[in-house]
Amino acid sequence: MIEITPIGRVESPLTELSGVPKQGDEGAPDALLVLDPRVKDALEGLQPGDEVIVITWLHAADREVLKVYPRGDTSRGLQGVFNTRSPARPNPIGLHRVTILSIDGTTLKVDEMEAIDGTPILDLKPVLTALDER
Amino acid sequence: MIEITPIGRVESPLTELSGVPKQGDEGAPDALLVLDPRVKDALEGLQPGDEVIVITWLHAADREVLKVYPRGDTSRGLQGVFNTRSPARPNPIGLHRVTILSIDGTTLKVDEMEAIDGTPILDLKPVLTALDER
Repeated sequence: MIEITPIGRVESPLTELSGVPKQGDEGAPDALLVLDPRVKDALEGLQPGDEVIVITWLHAADREVLKVYPRGDTSRGLQGVFNTRSPARPNPIGLHRVTILSIDGTTLKVDEMEAIDGTPILDLKPVLTALDER
Repeated sequence: MIEITPIGRVESPLTELSGVPKQGDEGAPDALLVLDPRVKDALEGLQPGDEVIVITWLHAADREVLKVYPRGDTSRGLQGVFNTRSPARPNPIGLHRVTILSIDGTTLKVDEMEAIDGTPILDLKPVLTALDER
C-alpha cells in the first residue's frame, strides 16, 4: 500500500462528471491548480506559456470497473480499461496536458483542464518534446 | 491522504539507480510488467505493438528534494523538480512510454523501460496520438 499526500487541488467551474469533456482539447475550461505552499520551490523555472503534464487522482471515478465501451462507442466492443483513457480503472490517475497561463505564488492558472472542482493533484512534470511528441 | 494498491511490479535487470538511464530512449533494457491476475480483464484489447504509458511509483526516489540540477547540468542553475523529469519530487510518479513486445496472461514484456527491478506499477494507459503527440 502506497500513501500519497496530494500537492494541491484543482479549482474549476466543472462540478459534475457529466459536464467533463473526455479530453482537454474538446472544450474544457481554464482551471486553477492551487498547490500547497510547501512545494513552492519545486515550481522554480516554470513560466507562463510552458506546457506541463498535470497528474491527478480522479477521486470520483469507479474503481471496480475493468471493461468499458470507450467514450460510449459500442462498435469495438467492451475494452479493458488499460486500453482506454476512461477515468474508470483500479487506480484512477489522470494525465492532463495543459499550458500555464499565469502563476501567482503557488497557484497556477492553466487552460483546457478536464477535471472536476476539488480533484487532488499528485504531481507536475514538464512536457519533453523529444519524449512526449515523438 | 490517498491510499493506492499497485496493480503490479516491474521485473528488470536494472537493480541500481545509478544504472538507470534518464529516459527510456537512451538505452534502457526490456522489462516485464508483472500485473496482478485480478486486473486481467482490464488488459482486454491490448496487443503486441501497442504503445502504452506505464505509470509507476518511483519508490527509491528522494521525496524531500524540491530543486535539482536537471540531469546534472549546472548551466541552467537549480530548477524546481516540477520543471524537470527527475525522479526526486514530493510524489515520485513515473511516466514511461513503452511498446508492448508480448503478452502472457497478465505479464507484459515491454521495450526500453527505465525503472529498477521491483518498481510498483500504478496504472497503464494507451498512447493517444492526437493527445500525446500533438
